[in-house]
Amino acid sequence: MYLEKINSPEDLKKLSIDKLDTLADEIRKFLVDSVSHTGGHLASNLGVVDLTIAMHYAFCCPRDKFVWDVGHQAYTHKILTGRRDEFSTLRKLDGLSGFPKTNESKYDSFNTGHSSTSIAAAIGLARARDLSEQSYNVVSVIGDGAMTGGLAYEALNNIGRNHTKLIMILNDNQMSISENVGAMSKYLSELILTQKYVNAKTGIQKTLKNMKFGGEALYNLLYRGKSTLKNAIMQENSMFEYLGIKYVGPIDGHDIKRLVNVFNKAKKLDVPVLIHVMTKKGKGYKPAENMPSVYHGVGSFDARVGIVKNDKKPETYSDVFGSKIVSLAASNKKICAITAAMPIGTCLCGFEKLYPQRFFDVGIAEEYAVTFAAGLAKGGYIPVFAVYSTFLQRAYDQIIHDVCIQNLHVIFAIDRAGIVGDDGETHQGIYDVSFLSHIPNLTVLAPKNKHELEEMLEFAINHNGPCAIRYPRGTASDIMAAAHAPIEYGKAEYIYSGEKIALVSYGAMMDEAAEIYGKLIEARYNPTLINARFASPIDGAMIDDLAKNYEYIFTMEDNIYSGGFGSLISQRLCEHGLGDNVIHSFAFPDLYVEHGKRELLFDRYNMSADKIYQKMTEIISENENAR
Amino acid sequence: MYLEKINSPEDLKKLSIDKLDTLADEIRKFLVDSVSHTGGHLASNLGVVDLTIAMHYAFCCPRDKFVWDVGHQAYTHKILTGRRDEFSTLRKLDGLSGFPKTNESKYDSFNTGHSSTSIAAAIGLARARDLSEQSYNVVSVIGDGAMTGGLAYEALNNIGRNHTKLIMILNDNQMSISENVGAMSKYLSELILTQKYVNAKTGIQKTLKNMKFGGEALYNLLYRGKSTLKNAIMQENSMFEYLGIKYVGPIDGHDIKRLVNVFNKAKKLDVPVLIHVMTKKGKGYKPAENMPSVYHGVGSFDARVGIVKNDKKPETYSDVFGSKIVSLAASNKKICAITAAMPIGTCLCGFEKLYPQRFFDVGIAEEYAVTFAAGLAKGGYIPVFAVYSTFLQRAYDQIIHDVCIQNLHVIFAIDRAGIVGDDGETHQGIYDVSFLSHIPNLTVLAPKNKHELEEMLEFAINHNGPCAIRYPRGTASDIMAAAHAPIEYGKAEYIYSGEKIALVSYGAMMDEAAEIYGKLIEARYNPTLINARFASPIDGAMIDDLAKNYEYIFTMEDNIYSGGFGSLISQRLCEHGLGDNVIHSFAFPDLYVEHGKRELLFDRYNMSADKIYQKMTEIISENENAR
Repeated sequence: MYLEKINSPEDLKKLSIDKLDTLADEIRKFLVDSVSHTGGHLASNLGVVDLTIAMHYAFCCPRDKFVWDVGHQAYTHKILTGRRDEFSTLRKLDGLSGFPKTNESKYDSFNTGHSSTSIAAAIGLARARDLSEQSYNVVSVIGDGAMTGGLAYEALNNIGRNHTKLIMILNDNQMSISENVGAMSKYLSELILTQKYVNAKTGIQKTLKNMKFGGEALYNLLYRGKSTLKNAIMQENSMFEYLGIKYVGPIDGHDIKRLVNVFNKAKKLDVPVLIHVMTKKGKGYKPAENMPSVYHGVGSFDARVGIVKNDKKPETYSDVFGSKIVSLAASNKKICAITAAMPIGTCLCGFEKLYPQRFFDVGIAEEYAVTFAAGLAKGGYIPVFAVYSTFLQRAYDQIIHDVCIQNLHVIFAIDRAGIVGDDGETHQGIYDVSFLSHIPNLTVLAPKNKHELEEMLEFAINHNGPCAIRYPRGTASDIMAAAHAPIEYGKAEYIYSGEKIALVSYGAMMDEAAEIYGKLIEARYNPTLINARFASPIDGAMIDDLAKNYEYIFTMEDNIYSGGFGSLISQRLCEHGLGDNVIHSFAFPDLYVEHGKRELLFDRYNMSADKIYQKMTEIISENENAR
Repeated sequence: MYLEKINSPEDLKKLSIDKLDTLADEIRKFLVDSVSHTGGHLASNLGVVDLTIAMHYAFCCPRDKFVWDVGHQAYTHKILTGRRDEFSTLRKLDGLSGFPKTNESKYDSFNTGHSSTSIAAAIGLARARDLSEQSYNVVSVIGDGAMTGGLAYEALNNIGRNHTKLIMILNDNQMSISENVGAMSKYLSELILTQKYVNAKTGIQKTLKNMKFGGEALYNLLYRGKSTLKNAIMQENSMFEYLGIKYVGPIDGHDIKRLVNVFNKAKKLDVPVLIHVMTKKGKGYKPAENMPSVYHGVGSFDARVGIVKNDKKPETYSDVFGSKIVSLAASNKKICAITAAMPIGTCLCGFEKLYPQRFFDVGIAEEYAVTFAAGLAKGGYIPVFAVYSTFLQRAYDQIIHDVCIQNLHVIFAIDRAGIVGDDGETHQGIYDVSFLSHIPNLTVLAPKNKHELEEMLEFAINHNGPCAIRYPRGTASDIMAAAHAPIEYGKAEYIYSGEKIALVSYGAMMDEAAEIYGKLIEARYNPTLINARFASPIDGAMIDDLAKNYEYIFTMEDNIYSGGFGSLISQRLCEHGLGDNVIHSFAFPDLYVEHGKRELLFDRYNMSADKIYQKMTEIISENENAR
């Protein structure tokens, strides 16, 4: 066992290079064992074991800076940098993060989580290095899937200017989270094939040089001519060369010796280098090799047999969305579905199968998804963009500028809204109410349960304007199923009418609100329970009622405090004119919420039903005493 | 005069093709005359006169859809589609918009304003056309500058998949708003040069074919080989071909006959086509040809002599920023400046000249600018990203994900915050308080006057964390210059202490607030006047004071109502517990504010000092009567 002796890159370097393949096998075994217990990202991490070993063998981290694009493939990096023993806590509250975190280790140079950021960040680090006249290496690792994001291209477009030294490793597994789409993917495949061209070229040179008449001159014309002509002809890798980037590859990403050799050479170059590395997702664990998408992000499973499909898995909000949109699309031929590389996560696979013409997987390109949707809507269709809350942050401007100014009928099905849990601060969907509900023309909805999600989708299909519907990760709730007043534009649903205390719950907070309602009833209060439904527009009649008829108004939302549902309600209540009402918004505090189980985070941030109830009764008794 | 007879594309088509050059001259004269009176975008419009005539001559708008990227170059399009007579109202309140507007004309297919959206929108329109089995043309016109934006690339990457018929006109003036930067620009120049290659190729073919030994075989190998090899060799335009796009060009964009001919051919192709057109910004008006940046966006001027530099032009907030950042950078070598293609608009030219190593113009790529800044900050530098409020919307996710989660020392100098006036709804900077002030770790500041802008910049340089400072377009105010309490983190500035009424002004609203204060004093009130300074964090002591000591609390901001400064204050006041305080937030309503002079828009939306004062006194007297 080599692995147990390795607690830092220095330890790794004590091994002779021919031991590294054995180490890689040990790490793979460790990863499968460990992730099968904790859950986590598996296939992508198995794919880069050899690559990561080679990086740490060839470079000197933390002096050299590694920037991992997306970052969920950094497990081997964590294992090799002294965090092996913490893997039992992976993605658990206060445990090891599933992503690089600068405050977790000096070996992590830059936080990542979202896609396509690594080249931009690495250029920044490299320029800072140059300005301060230091000489370390900056190495970014980006997957081929991340190359579909515009930010990656903006960065590539900026590299060539000053020829900053920078090493980009393109980790090409010919598949991002789902299968890769678009032209960049095709281009990369072509690059692989053109290896054959390089071989052919050698043959041509020989032929030309041996030709009796004009061969030598032609060779010079072809290969020694002025730069433009030469580039035009000799560009088996023209796209990168035009960008001012030296292209090396493709290289077998599981051949550690070759990789170390290439990295050592790249270190000596003083220009931006892109090293195109071919890896296999799930490498070394047969079930993951065969079904990399299934093993992308996993819960715990039996490592011996792999993931057994469990038909009794509880229905999620994503499932409910996926089924409903299929049934709506059956009767409405205008409905289109769009995903940004998340057909499985957003449950659009059924739609894709039934309506391939109306289904668009645009790759990791949320901005494009939104502006493209605007075009579809302008052309008379009803596009539904299913997207995780955290990724929709990427398209804030497009939502305003391309969709909402023109008041176009685009539907945003916002999955993973609220606390997502294990992925942590880069993925929490707790900002969407704040960044969406001030956008003019945009209707912002959230269902209390799975039935209401279906009803809201129907509503949105029939509402001629942009609509966003946010729903959380995980099991679809059946809470308060008996209440199902028809969805009416801008109208809240009163579930129970009482007095003095109003509980105003937004969306999935109904799970907690219902429990709190029960506790208050037990404590002999008779509160009113409201399901707000809309964060925009806010129900004016409800505001009127709240201001006039209640002493205590409590809002609840799984979003941050500032700019959220509570702030919208508070502002309108103030405007309305209050008596001595007490208003309190329960929301996540204005900070970044770490990874951990949803329930634990709700508890830690005083958002569980128990904690909210406790605070409410404190507020009530404080006030009663003061009177 | 042909022009006066043309009120629609049909009229245009009645002209024989050899009259079009004369028409172009007439339009240029009309544009120079008209814009010299009204102000507007001149250089870019002069550049595309011939192109636009050719488009309308070859295509059938509005059946065929034109999508103008950015859109400020659509004047000729407007002239040819029945809006010539309205040019005297250009960019004036209720007058002609400076951008395409679907609600202005049936000839405008899609609203634009921000850069790099046209290809994405056009693909949407084209897919909608295909789905509904129609056959019109979709034509997008995108400048070379806009090609630096990631969204354009995301779109290009998505074109190839279904080979949707689509015509993209790349309007290459080798300069976006300022000079173009980056590799795409270089690539396009190479394309132009490779025309020579095409000619050379013909020569090579001849040589090869005439060669006695092996020439024919070699020719076949080179030009008839399997697709990959052929592509690798014959790719004078490989980048676009790889993207599945037929490339045509470069073509002289002032040769109307040639353009019409090419467009007519392009219509017949059933694949995506990119027509690379070379134009000259400012074409036909010497002053604009010589100084296209100066004539990009202009006020009124004397057309005979051109713009005369007026040294007495009042100092703007941008000027103040530009000077201060230069002086700060002199003593602090860590300060870097970043612009996204707006060095002139943001007044960074002085910085660029003095500190070229620390200056970065990244092209139209706001996302990249922010993530790159994060990298610089992580590397120990203090990047200042000077950007218009409306364009910063593009980088919402990068601000959260790359800068603020890591609490990095990046400064956002947000120019054109609030009402920008003539450019209208796509450019108003009235969302930034709402989309920034809920972001954890981000300090959000706004100065009451030009001195405070300087002080806030100093504060931000010394504050170790992300800071945003927002300031408006136009003349730098000197209001309340006597008040200059040192900037203290999270602390408001009390300018006048009074009683009963608190005026809480955010940033540039101090111009109005001061006037209102004066009016209230005249009316024998004795209000307190507060300069809030921070929208995040909100001053807790101020909240405490407001809740306890004032009957009337009036907030004022040049941002929209929801999620803005007023909502943050209201929510915290509610939380604090109120007596019978009256709270009212003065802000722009939650809608898109059209183009027009700043003062007129302030008046229309009840945000002028007079209107606010009137509303305040109404609120006060209503309340006094009710007691």
